Amino acid sequence: MNFSNNVLPLFVSGEESAIAKLSDPTLIKLSIGNPPDEGFPIERIRAISERLLKDDPYSMLSYSTPGGRADLKAAVKTFLNRRFKTVNDDDVITITGGGQQAISLAAQLFCNDGDTILCESPTFMAALDTLRSMSAKLVGVNMEDDGIDLQDLEEKMQMEPKPKMLYIISDFQNPTGICLSEHKRKAICELAYKYDIPVLEDNPYYELRFEGEFIPFVKCFDTHGMVALTSSMSKIVAPGMRVGYVVAPGKMGEGFSLLKGSADLHGSTWAQRVCCELLNEGLEDELVSLRELYGHRGRLMYERLGRYCHPSVKFTKPQGGMFIWVTLPDGCDMPAFVDELMDNKVVVVSGDQFFAENGENSTSFRLSYSLANDEQIDRSCSIIGELTHKYCR
Amino acid sequence: MNFSNNVLPLFVSGEESAIAKLSDPTLIKLSIGNPPDEGFPIERIRAISERLLKDDPYSMLSYSTPGGRADLKAAVKTFLNRRFKTVNDDDVITITGGGQQAISLAAQLFCNDGDTILCESPTFMAALDTLRSMSAKLVGVNMEDDGIDLQDLEEKMQMEPKPKMLYIISDFQNPTGICLSEHKRKAICELAYKYDIPVLEDNPYYELRFEGEFIPFVKCFDTHGMVALTSSMSKIVAPGMRVGYVVAPGKMGEGFSLLKGSADLHGSTWAQRVCCELLNEGLEDELVSLRELYGHRGRLMYERLGRYCHPSVKFTKPQGGMFIWVTLPDGCDMPAFVDELMDNKVVVVSGDQFFAENGENSTSFRLSYSLANDEQIDRSCSIIGELTHKYCR
Repeated sequence: MNFSNNVLPLFVSGEESAIAKLSDPTLIKLSIGNPPDEGFPIERIRAISERLLKDDPYSMLSYSTPGGRADLKAAVKTFLNRRFKTVNDDDVITITGGGQQAISLAAQLFCNDGDTILCESPTFMAALDTLRSMSAKLVGVNMEDDGIDLQDLEEKMQMEPKPKMLYIISDFQNPTGICLSEHKRKAICELAYKYDIPVLEDNPYYELRFEGEFIPFVKCFDTHGMVALTSSMSKIVAPGMRVGYVVAPGKMGEGFSLLKGSADLHGSTWAQRVCCELLNEGLEDELVSLRELYGHRGRLMYERLGRYCHPSVKFTKPQGGMFIWVTLPDGCDMPAFVDELMDNKVVVVSGDQFFAENGENSTSFRLSYSLANDEQIDRSCSIIGELTHKYCR
Repeated sequence: MNFSNNVLPLFVSGEESAIAKLSDPTLIKLSIGNPPDEGFPIERIRAISERLLKDDPYSMLSYSTPGGRADLKAAVKTFLNRRFKTVNDDDVITITGGGQQAISLAAQLFCNDGDTILCESPTFMAALDTLRSMSAKLVGVNMEDDGIDLQDLEEKMQMEPKPKMLYIISDFQNPTGICLSEHKRKAICELAYKYDIPVLEDNPYYELRFEGEFIPFVKCFDTHGMVALTSSMSKIVAPGMRVGYVVAPGKMGEGFSLLKGSADLHGSTWAQRVCCELLNEGLEDELVSLRELYGHRGRLMYERLGRYCHPSVKFTKPQGGMFIWVTLPDGCDMPAFVDELMDNKVVVVSGDQFFAENGENSTSFRLSYSLANDEQIDRSCSIIGELTHKYCR
C-alpha cells in the first residue's frame, strides 16, 4: 500500500513534535504557545452553556449550516469591524476549526499538487506542516524588523512557475513576535494585485496587543479582493472551542465556505453558539485582562533576557502576542544549545523547525511567555542567559 | 486569480444543494437524512456538560491532544468491540469532525491529484463532493441487492492507472439503504489484498439496525491491515457534536492522525469530553429507543409505498438506517417527476446526484424517513404513489 505525497512530510516531522509532550512537571516549558487556562472566561462560558442547553438545546446540538451559523458570522463581522472596517458587505465569512483549518483550506483553494506557496522565513511550524500536507512547495521570504522583506517578496513573486499564494502572520508573528508595519501592509496588497497572487493573512494574536497602537489588518487595505483574513477564538476565549474563521471576498470567500462544508460540514454547534453569545455580550473586559497578563509576562521576559544574556545575543521586543525570538551569533551550535537548555529543565523550540528551507543554519530559538509565571520567567531567563555566555565566547 | 482544480466541482454542485434549504414549513422534506431532534439524549448531555464545566472546566476548554483525546479513543474502542472484535491493539483511532472528515482525510492520505477512487454507484452525494474536492477521479462500481457487485469491483480494481482507494458504506447504504452481505465483506478484504487497494468503510448507521442480525464490520474481517473504518456520534447522539472517528491499522492509522492534526489540530474539546462520558456511562437504552423510532418509520414508509405505488416501481426494504431508494422504470423523466413532487410539497432527492458518472440516466430517487411522522409518511407516500401511476403508464 502506498501513501500520498501529502502525508510523507508529516511522517517525518511528526517525530520531532514529541518535544511538546514532555510530561516532567519540573520542566519550564517556554516551548508551548498556548493561552493560559487562567485567561479563559470559564464562568461566562458555563452560564451561557447552561442557559442555552436548557432554553434552546436543539440549537446547540443539531446540524448547523455548512460553513457555520449565520448568527456567529454576523457577530464576527461586528467584532472585526469595531476598530477598522475589515469585513465588507460582499465578503463571505466561514467558520473554521481554529485558524489552522483556514490555512489548510487556503492551500486547497488555491493550489494543485506541487504548486508554490510563499511564506515568511521563519514562520509558524504547524502551518508549514499543514501546507506541506496539501502537497504545496514552500518558498520562504526573508523577514526584517518590521515584517516581510518587500524586495525579496517581489523577487519571489516573479518566480516561475508562479506562486499561487502568500501566507503571512501580520501581528506578533509566530515565531518572531514581529509586527508588520502599516506601510508594508499596503505594499503587500499592491504586490498581490501586480502579480495576481492571493494572500492569506493569519492573525490569531491581534487582540493581544499590549504596546503601541492597533494597526488595521492587511485585509483592511485590500481594494481588489485579493486578501483573506483568518483569526480565531482560541487566543481570546479558549482554544478547545476550535472556533476560528476566515473572511474572504466574493468568490474566494464562497470557495472557502464550500471547501469547509466538504471537509467536515461545520464545527461543533455548541461551541459556535457559545462563542456567538460571548461576542454579542461583549469581550472587552476579558481582553483588557488578557492584555495585562501577556503584557506583564512579555515585558518581564524581555527585561530579564536583557539582564542575563551575552551582549551579542539579539532578541525581539514584543508589542503583543506571546513570542520572543532569540538569535545567537552565526556559527553557534543551536542543537547543542537547545539540548543543554533541556538538561537544565528549560524547554524552547529550536529555530530550524520554523523555516521552509535551510532551517539547519538557524542560530535562533523561540520563547513563549504565555504559560510562565514570574518566578519561572526569571529562573529560565537566568539559565538561558548563563548558557549564552558559554556559547557566545 | 485562479482557483485550484479542487474547488471547481464544488462551485458547480454547490448550487444544487439549495434544495436542502427550502424553508416552506408546509413541505414534507423526505430529502434530509438528519437524525430527528427527539432522538438526542438532551438531558444526559446537559447533566454531563454542567457537571464537567463545574468540576473540570479546563479539560473541556483547553487544547486536547492533536487527533483527539485518549479517553475518548479508549471509549470508542470499547464501544466498537462490544459485539465483534473490531479495533485491534495496533490500530490507531483518530477523532474526526464527523465521519465526513474521515472521507476527506482518506483521500488526502491515499491520493495525489487526479488519482482514481472507486466508490459504489450510487453513493453518498456529499462524499462525492468531498472526494472531488481532493482532486480525485471517481469511478463508480455497480450495486446489487446485497451490496457492491464483486465482479464489477474486481474489473475496476484492475484499471490502469491503479485505483488508490475503495470507498464503501457497508450498512443501510446512503442512498440505497442496502446492507452489504457478510460473504461480500470477506470478499472485499480478499480483493483489497489481491490488488493492494486500501478500503475506507463508512458506517454511520450501523447501530440503527431494526431488523435482522448485526453483521461484523468489513474491518472485522481484515487480517492484512487494508481496511479503515469510520463512524460517528452524529446518528446516535447528536450531529452538532461533530464527533466522528476513523480506526485504521498501524501506519495507515498514524497517517490519519497526522493529517487530522495538520488539518485542524482536533475537534471541540467539550464535545469530545461529553461523548466520552456518554459512551462510558452507556448508550444502550438510547439505542433501543432509536431503533424503535427508525424501525417504526421505516416499516411504515415501506408498507405505504407498496400500498400506493404503481406495481412497476421498485424500492428497497430497509433493515436499518434512514433511507429507501425508489426506482421507476427505465425512460421515466425523473427531473419532471421530482419537480412535480415538489409542486405537491413533497421534497425528495433526485437519483442523479448520487452517481460518480452518468447519473443523468437515473430513474431513481432517495427517500429519508428519519424526520417524518406517521401522518407525513402516509400523505407523502400517497402523493408519490399517485404520481408513479401517472409516470409509469
